[in-house]
Amino acid sequence: MATRIVMLAYPQMDQMDLTGPYEVFARLPDCRVQIVWKNRKPVRDSLGLTLVPDTKFSKVKGCDVLCVPGGPGQITLMEDEETLDFLRRMARTASYVTSVCTGSLVLGAAGLLMGYKATCHWLSLEQLSLLGAIPVAERVVVDRDRMTCAGVTSGIDFALMLARELAGENEARRISLAMEYDPRPPFPGLADEDSRLVEEVRLRTAAFQEQRVAVARAAGQRLLSHPDLP
Amino acid sequence: MATRIVMLAYPQMDQMDLTGPYEVFARLPDCRVQIVWKNRKPVRDSLGLTLVPDTKFSKVKGCDVLCVPGGPGQITLMEDEETLDFLRRMARTASYVTSVCTGSLVLGAAGLLMGYKATCHWLSLEQLSLLGAIPVAERVVVDRDRMTCAGVTSGIDFALMLARELAGENEARRISLAMEYDPRPPFPGLADEDSRLVEEVRLRTAAFQEQRVAVARAAGQRLLSHPDLP
Repeated sequence: MATRIVMLAYPQMDQMDLTGPYEVFARLPDCRVQIVWKNRKPVRDSLGLTLVPDTKFSKVKGCDVLCVPGGPGQITLMEDEETLDFLRRMARTASYVTSVCTGSLVLGAAGLLMGYKATCHWLSLEQLSLLGAIPVAERVVVDRDRMTCAGVTSGIDFALMLARELAGENEARRISLAMEYDPRPPFPGLADEDSRLVEEVRLRTAAFQEQRVAVARAAGQRLLSHPDLP
Repeated sequence: MATRIVMLAYPQMDQMDLTGPYEVFARLPDCRVQIVWKNRKPVRDSLGLTLVPDTKFSKVKGCDVLCVPGGPGQITLMEDEETLDFLRRMARTASYVTSVCTGSLVLGAAGLLMGYKATCHWLSLEQLSLLGAIPVAERVVVDRDRMTCAGVTSGIDFALMLARELAGENEARRISLAMEYDPRPPFPGLADEDSRLVEEVRLRTAAFQEQRVAVARAAGQRLLSHPDLP
């Protein structure tokens, strides 16, 4: 049977958290990738791109890989029991429970990262500890069957690593070559080399990040008394 | 006035050729990014992702940046006068005429790369010469107001370079940081290091590539007698 990959889509997600890994997964042999939301109405991402989900929660029986993208809409999802229930249901059959960017906070809010090492967008990494996860500042973090990755573009690196797990080294290399994935970032490196810019981004996003932290804290509290969780 | 960025979408394009640069462009201050096709019906990419265009050809008066993605659907476009006319019309006002992957073959078919250095996905690079362009095996090629880039993922590198032109170094760095663009490719390098794999991909795609070459050759012939071109 084909490997079933379920990717969550939702309003105000960051489209590239989804489209980056999608590009890799959809090239795998014997794979069926489905973009899933509550309904099949077009979903608008935080930057304005409109995607159409392939199917809705109620139609999906289970999956082998679950992947949750991040983006500002993740805040609403962390308090959305319908979505959290869906993710928990998918996780029961999945061999890999994965996320890109702040998607790991949604997995965390669903109680799916309790006691797992995980990562997130650099701005929000510490929030994972509010959800029972152990934050690790790496681009891709694998802990047992959980794979999480850092901000936005890290989804490509993660997806190629998962492709190697699913289909072997040769197939993953073939996909990398087909996508001509030999990046030449015009601004190599990140935070360390430009702390003034990091400070600027932290200041600009401070109010929004406060809201994100508050929601993560509340989600963490709810997890302590959730009936379905160990 | 806001910078107007027009990105072409079409059936059987490669979604990441569009979504990669979109992620960068949509983060620029004072920019309006529009995804444009003949009509506003959802467009399915070659891997199965469904995107909704923002507007249609007839509604777009002009733009500052034109960007054409690639993908197998590019073959049909190269013989589609409605699309080629639209691209020529956009190019008249654009300060930058750009493409990702085999999108450069579409620009070429529209006569927009005559005498320009340009690049393309590695498998199809040589076809540019059939369209009056000068193929250059680099990840991003800038020749006057033309910017073209190599396969799929190169669109991110190209878009950050263009972001620097449009909004300055600081803004482009901020976007790179927000996207956490510090790639760690699991399979670094490309063709040179794995010529067996390159050979395999060439063999697997030979029939399809033959079709692509034939269409490029025919488009090149038509350019020689096109009334609107110099």
